[in-house]
Amino acid sequence: MFAHNKRLQYTVRVQETNPGLANLMLEQFGGPQGELAAACRYFTQYLAEDDPGRRDMLIDIATEELSHLEVIGTIVAMLNKGAKGKLSEAAETEAEMYRSISGAGNDSHVTQLLYGGGPPLTNSAGVPWTSAYVDSIGDPSCDLRSNIAAESRAKIIYERLISCTDDPGVKEALGFLMTREIAHQQSFEKALYSIQPNFPPGKLPGMPQFTNVYFNMSDGDASQDMRGPWNNEPIFEYRSAEPAVDGGSGMPELTLRGDEAQIAEQLALRTRSDPDSDPTTGAELGMAGAGEPAKTPPASGGGGRVKGRGAKSDPTNGPASR
Amino acid sequence: MFAHNKRLQYTVRVQETNPGLANLMLEQFGGPQGELAAACRYFTQYLAEDDPGRRDMLIDIATEELSHLEVIGTIVAMLNKGAKGKLSEAAETEAEMYRSISGAGNDSHVTQLLYGGGPPLTNSAGVPWTSAYVDSIGDPSCDLRSNIAAESRAKIIYERLISCTDDPGVKEALGFLMTREIAHQQSFEKALYSIQPNFPPGKLPGMPQFTNVYFNMSDGDASQDMRGPWNNEPIFEYRSAEPAVDGGSGMPELTLRGDEAQIAEQLALRTRSDPDSDPTTGAELGMAGAGEPAKTPPASGGGGRVKGRGAKSDPTNGPASR
Amino acid sequence: MFAHNKRLQYTVRVQETNPGLANLMLEQFGGPQGELAAACRYFTQYLAEDDPGRRDMLIDIATEELSHLEVIGTIVAMLNKGAKGKLSEAAETEAEMYRSISGAGNDSHVTQLLYGGGPPLTNSAGVPWTSAYVDSIGDPSCDLRSNIAAESRAKIIYERLISCTDDPGVKEALGFLMTREIAHQQSFEKALYSIQPNFPPGKLPGMPQFTNVYFNMSDGDASQDMRGPWNNEPIFEYRSAEPAVDGGSGMPELTLRGDEAQIAEQLALRTRSDPDSDPTTGAELGMAGAGEPAKTPPASGGGGRVKGRGAKSDPTNGPASR
Amino acid sequence: MFAHNKRLQYTVRVQETNPGLANLMLEQFGGPQGELAAACRYFTQYLAEDDPGRRDMLIDIATEELSHLEVIGTIVAMLNKGAKGKLSEAAETEAEMYRSISGAGNDSHVTQLLYGGGPPLTNSAGVPWTSAYVDSIGDPSCDLRSNIAAESRAKIIYERLISCTDDPGVKEALGFLMTREIAHQQSFEKALYSIQPNFPPGKLPGMPQFTNVYFNMSDGDASQDMRGPWNNEPIFEYRSAEPAVDGGSGMPELTLRGDEAQIAEQLALRTRSDPDSDPTTGAELGMAGAGEPAKTPPASGGGGRVKGRGAKSDPTNGPASR
Amino acid sequence: MFAHNKRLQYTVRVQETNPGLANLMLEQFGGPQGELAAACRYFTQYLAEDDPGRRDMLIDIATEELSHLEVIGTIVAMLNKGAKGKLSEAAETEAEMYRSISGAGNDSHVTQLLYGGGPPLTNSAGVPWTSAYVDSIGDPSCDLRSNIAAESRAKIIYERLISCTDDPGVKEALGFLMTREIAHQQSFEKALYSIQPNFPPGKLPGMPQFTNVYFNMSDGDASQDMRGPWNNEPIFEYRSAEPAVDGGSGMPELTLRGDEAQIAEQLALRTRSDPDSDPTTGAELGMAGAGEPAKTPPASGGGGRVKGRGAKSDPTNGPASR
Amino acid sequence: MFAHNKRLQYTVRVQETNPGLANLMLEQFGGPQGELAAACRYFTQYLAEDDPGRRDMLIDIATEELSHLEVIGTIVAMLNKGAKGKLSEAAETEAEMYRSISGAGNDSHVTQLLYGGGPPLTNSAGVPWTSAYVDSIGDPSCDLRSNIAAESRAKIIYERLISCTDDPGVKEALGFLMTREIAHQQSFEKALYSIQPNFPPGKLPGMPQFTNVYFNMSDGDASQDMRGPWNNEPIFEYRSAEPAVDGGSGMPELTLRGDEAQIAEQLALRTRSDPDSDPTTGAELGMAGAGEPAKTPPASGGGGRVKGRGAKSDPTNGPASR
Repeated sequence: MFAHNKRLQYTVRVQETNPGLANLMLEQFGGPQGELAAACRYFTQYLAEDDPGRRDMLIDIATEELSHLEVIGTIVAMLNKGAKGKLSEAAETEAEMYRSISGAGNDSHVTQLLYGGGPPLTNSAGVPWTSAYVDSIGDPSCDLRSNIAAESRAKIIYERLISCTDDPGVKEALGFLMTREIAHQQSFEKALYSIQPNFPPGKLPGMPQFTNVYFNMSDGDASQDMRGPWNNEPIFEYRSAEPAVDGGSGMPELTLRGDEAQIAEQLALRTRSDPDSDPTTGAELGMAGAGEPAKTPPASGGGGRVKGRGAKSDPTNGPASR
Repeated sequence: MFAHNKRLQYTVRVQETNPGLANLMLEQFGGPQGELAAACRYFTQYLAEDDPGRRDMLIDIATEELSHLEVIGTIVAMLNKGAKGKLSEAAETEAEMYRSISGAGNDSHVTQLLYGGGPPLTNSAGVPWTSAYVDSIGDPSCDLRSNIAAESRAKIIYERLISCTDDPGVKEALGFLMTREIAHQQSFEKALYSIQPNFPPGKLPGMPQFTNVYFNMSDGDASQDMRGPWNNEPIFEYRSAEPAVDGGSGMPELTLRGDEAQIAEQLALRTRSDPDSDPTTGAELGMAGAGEPAKTPPASGGGGRVKGRGAKSDPTNGPASR
Repeated sequence: MFAHNKRLQYTVRVQETNPGLANLMLEQFGGPQGELAAACRYFTQYLAEDDPGRRDMLIDIATEELSHLEVIGTIVAMLNKGAKGKLSEAAETEAEMYRSISGAGNDSHVTQLLYGGGPPLTNSAGVPWTSAYVDSIGDPSCDLRSNIAAESRAKIIYERLISCTDDPGVKEALGFLMTREIAHQQSFEKALYSIQPNFPPGKLPGMPQFTNVYFNMSDGDASQDMRGPWNNEPIFEYRSAEPAVDGGSGMPELTLRGDEAQIAEQLALRTRSDPDSDPTTGAELGMAGAGEPAKTPPASGGGGRVKGRGAKSDPTNGPASR
Repeated sequence: MFAHNKRLQYTVRVQETNPGLANLMLEQFGGPQGELAAACRYFTQYLAEDDPGRRDMLIDIATEELSHLEVIGTIVAMLNKGAKGKLSEAAETEAEMYRSISGAGNDSHVTQLLYGGGPPLTNSAGVPWTSAYVDSIGDPSCDLRSNIAAESRAKIIYERLISCTDDPGVKEALGFLMTREIAHQQSFEKALYSIQPNFPPGKLPGMPQFTNVYFNMSDGDASQDMRGPWNNEPIFEYRSAEPAVDGGSGMPELTLRGDEAQIAEQLALRTRSDPDSDPTTGAELGMAGAGEPAKTPPASGGGGRVKGRGAKSDPTNGPASR
Repeated sequence: MFAHNKRLQYTVRVQETNPGLANLMLEQFGGPQGELAAACRYFTQYLAEDDPGRRDMLIDIATEELSHLEVIGTIVAMLNKGAKGKLSEAAETEAEMYRSISGAGNDSHVTQLLYGGGPPLTNSAGVPWTSAYVDSIGDPSCDLRSNIAAESRAKIIYERLISCTDDPGVKEALGFLMTREIAHQQSFEKALYSIQPNFPPGKLPGMPQFTNVYFNMSDGDASQDMRGPWNNEPIFEYRSAEPAVDGGSGMPELTLRGDEAQIAEQLALRTRSDPDSDPTTGAELGMAGAGEPAKTPPASGGGGRVKGRGAKSDPTNGPASR
Repeated sequence: MFAHNKRLQYTVRVQETNPGLANLMLEQFGGPQGELAAACRYFTQYLAEDDPGRRDMLIDIATEELSHLEVIGTIVAMLNKGAKGKLSEAAETEAEMYRSISGAGNDSHVTQLLYGGGPPLTNSAGVPWTSAYVDSIGDPSCDLRSNIAAESRAKIIYERLISCTDDPGVKEALGFLMTREIAHQQSFEKALYSIQPNFPPGKLPGMPQFTNVYFNMSDGDASQDMRGPWNNEPIFEYRSAEPAVDGGSGMPELTLRGDEAQIAEQLALRTRSDPDSDPTTGAELGMAGAGEPAKTPPASGGGGRVKGRGAKSDPTNGPASR
């Protein structure tokens, strides 16, 4: 069961209202790398976890992330407070209000018009939060790796936000939130490596002949095909791309039952393309200079070529020449 | 530039059509852990990457994932081929067709009705693929961690699919695809650790006083608060949860400009809740036994309590008693 | 700040694993009327709320909804536990596993294949939760009405779930969760009516001539146009539908600047439809019996009519006649 | 069956083109509180409604909302007309066009670039409309409450839009649309209360011991725990938060069948975390100053602590110090 | 199988970084008409296609679209490169950074803050790509029409983008991409018309009595009901709108089994609206001037009319009068 | 302005309730090819259209599609009516109800549990309708092509639905709806070809050297590279795939300003991968048989190779061998 304490985990001090900055902060409130995503990630893993140590850690961190959601949401709410009042009370002339709403140069108009200054669960583009951001799959060695990656991403988004504001109270609270991602990443790392073995994840081994192969799928000059620890011997066998590495035909093979085959054949016949036809097309009916098209379709031997319309200019030039 | 070879990277052999199995396979075609997500993840990272080694690796693996998308998509198409023909050609009676469409017990009806047997870019629930699945943020140490986690997840989903089919050709192709995730994970691991230092990610250090703290946010019996390497000394300082860890008030602080403050006050006044009122509510107007509610609202001193309606039974009992 | 207690708000007792039932329960975990939606709804309102009474109430109820999310999520996790083990450990033959995965007749395969038995933040169709479900707009009289409606909806979904299971422990826990929606609805009702006046919401009055009009937009027999308190005098003036109720032309009017008008004219000219033309179309090029279409387009005076192809039957008959 | 009259329900007069204002107006066209949502809400309720009075009212109002969708969409189209011509005809230099497209300071570039000046079914952030906004659940007492709330929200969004424009024709049309929401809310209120009883919704009563309890889930100073009609006696019993209010253990209880239990045990063993281990982690391999990490992993007893890298500054300071 | 060549299909030359322009370009990267949509469209059609000619064409064009995705993505990455460095290295003061991030006047802040300057698979509003953009249904005559339409749309979006930049290298590359849409459209047209017949699509003919009817569903002055080839005789029969064109009642008819009918009746009774009631509503409880509402509800005969609150002004006037 | 007539455009007769069939029908209600998509498509085009003929046609057809939405929605509502009553009134035992809810084998449980038997705006997988399905871009020659394609797709989905039911009344109504798509397609074709020229769409011509080129991007045996009218001379010039068709380097070129270049260099240095390193990775720390990994990391020269764990079987074999 959750309980709540009316004091924040970290005191939020905001110097002045700034809805444009509030909009940027939404990335860590309702954005893909934000605190709701983090809290949901660990909370749902906790629910299905049986290992007592991991279970305890997951709910500890999930609860802290909820508390961080409160901190960042409070920052957003404070930064929007002045604008909220003005719009609710229609305290400016319409022209001033229009400029206030649109003037931040980002999506802050959405917070004001649609959400009335309350912190919405969207990212800084106004995109609603979706649980498609949560990538847990119910395997601890995978989910811990996902958590490690998620913490590292959240750390960086905070770093970027810190670079965009000089309000010392906001900076300090963001610094705290950023710091905690570092701590959490370390816990998840420890939890991952205290499962042994944890690689490869799961139960099934790979096919030995392909587990350590690196396929060079992208050609280029020798100088462009880089070698490094990610494809070097002896860990990796460096091979050129080739199809049908199983030694087969590389073509799909399927056995259809008798009736299925017959029906498939019937479908193929009904919808076949005639490679030997020379049909007039809708595009040709619509080409410039095709005259009265319904009556005299373009000779397919030449008129079909698309030519520029008389007055048209090269697409790579500006409108000056039009 | 991409080029295509008409042979698959791995030969697909399908024993018989099975649209229900095809539906499950969609997880690795258009699902969050599937091959389109993998290809898009590495391809977009490649586009913005400047480090020549990582750039080369990313496009090598992106191209291979596209080739895997082709393999799994071919499996889906083959498994659906018989059903596709039957529906297109209306080759069964309506009652048979209805049973065929609905009978797999999962969402295979969607592939047939809406997508005509072609492999749709959805997961096995019919949910359209979204780039919200791609979590790249443009920082190599984060993106490589995300890639490592993504490969581990994809490995497990293949493992689960392998457990659900006894078609040897499908099993073998899935085994190949699963194996390659192991190889790719190793490459991404090597690439991550060839950046030094890579932890904490980014440029900004954490606040030293919070970087190695573990907050015990979830209470319980002593036996439930587990200790382990994820919160043990000397890496971690284990602390009880407490608000306002900065030593401040824990309450949000904001300076509003004079006019903002005045308008905010006006808004607060207009929308205040009167804690001393005792209002009749819409719920009370709608309660059973409230008589002619518009005329005689329930006395708020007692009639407001919700009571069960006469004939109603305990919600925890079955309908037998109703 | 949030804290967590390892005991649930209500004890969950599950008699036996049942992934099909677990799938239905997801409606109240990650569905639109579920507990995550409720918690997010009240938590975000709390963040922006200044009225001390409402603020306290909102966080009390938000915190309880989080605790309910834990209860319903625990039910889902328990119901899936048996299936989770089997798939992770591949403890059945493939044919058994395929039947287990697909056999519940709903979307439970998604929880197992994609989420590994952990409770996903989706509804019972596998659709990811989205904050588009949260309809808060930052005005207390609206948001309280939205909360009242949301509580009533959640109550009903629980009622439906209770009707679908005879596991007494699940029934009892669902009964508790359902009951709390009734309590919360009452609190939100009281909070709404303790704002006076609260109707119409906001600051601006309506245009008096249209505030109490009911337009009868749907014609029918006299017996079908129903009258009732929702359109009766003296509250409502019952009027027939008519366009341009403002007494104007009913047509859009716009003043374009000189250059805009000239450019708009140029665009109109370039893309005009010739109502006097009689063009051959792509459809006609593709009609059966149109012969070698590129050479001899159908005479538009008659051949354009779509006729059934020779062997085709009436669409309202069954395939027997095909 | 629907029919259409070419005249609008309310005449739209637009003084001058203004794509930035058009973008804001999209909230009521394709936004969550907009007219498409309203029309879809009432239309789908109508389809399933059997009560003749409600059924008639729902289609009357649905049809009017469609007519409002036409009014607001016409406003959007008019406001975009000048910009549409310019882009279609490439009537400005590229530099001018770029400024025109990006200059409104909100998302109006999307309407122009992607939708060519036509009104798109998105909100003002460019987010596509989704039926996830429609919260109908097929119970009349709930759906009417949802409709009441939806009308109140739409009223407020119109009020906000009215505050942002001084074009008198736009203001007047918005005023009409806003007014109609007030009328509709009154109809839905009357329809709700003409069902008796309507609270609690549905058939099942709550558990009496929890129906009127208010749990104080959020702690704080006495002065912060507010009392009011939403939690006052005698309607409510005010209780402190406590887990396991059923008197049980508060811990989930589940009976697994024998084989399920054995397999679950096997899974737990395979994936257990060793709380007594002291593993080196990936994070430690990537820490600054960890030397040649592959060769000499950090001693886990101390080197594991994250320290700032040499040149790094406090995150709460500006770049000046970097 | 796919392979990659490190050279682009068309050389990208970018004169200077411009994140605002990069944001607009995203329409053709991750937008609905962009190259990912095109590639996915043709690639998935290829997988299910059996006709050898179409199959070959589809994969040729799919592969080229992937190569175009690389070209447009490279343009986006180049245009963002300068901004990416500045944010990653925090190379400006916070105030400068805030202005840089927000200053483009469109959604470029999302690319920087969330995606770190890498090209995200979103459109220019920051909306994530979704396979809901792909409209393939597995019937070749439909899918080819869809492809024709998609190519024409993509052509126009490129045309709009070309109008917005004067960077000659960007213009030239966009011109190439635009040109290729013209070529692809022609191929899909030829492929469509080489299936004969292809109209109407599918197997079933229409009902002859309705196949060529045009219903005039929108009334207006005679001058507004336009006639043209789209509704002219002899192709079309022009009819006025009328309900029940089948000659029936126009009302839904359903046979319920006995128990179903009885239960439906029970439901109807429980939830009936009383058209003869005159209930007080929640709105009336909240009206201004309703006095102490819980005690003295408004007489429904008159006080229910909504009147403006005392000090309120006409919604069509500006705030000056408030 | 819209008006409504209480009679349907086509009488709906439903023989018996069938929620499973209702679920399939949702494809044409709230699915991507369904009637809401059609109505929204034409209605929004109408709003921005200035050509009087097209404008009239678009609103005529939009209004008819709304009327079709009503027909298909009525079918869905009728098919669900029996099930709706049973769930609302809890008229079966829980076990029966669970079977009823889950037994259709498709997603009909969602309509019942979440939507209470009312027709939801989702497709047959339960995916909410999104305006991302509407592909209008505000250019008439494109939008008409999109409309033509959309009508052809809708025709086919109806054909598939007709094949799945033997209820004669449902079949007949579906047949009517299918037929009208044929009629609409013909109108849109006529409207397209009455714009001359209409190909290529828009104003800008293509680059002549690439407008009629067909690139053979997919290699294979000669027998696999198919030729046909879609790539035949003289319309098309058939060329092999080659990068840098502009004759340039094929590599991106960008001029960074001095400070940008310096900062980019700094970023590159900070995040460089060392290709000559041989780092131990997290994967290696987690490999089986790596011993006490923190203490003795695997020698990177050999131990890094992934080997199967002792007891593991080949992934291509069944569990029998495990």
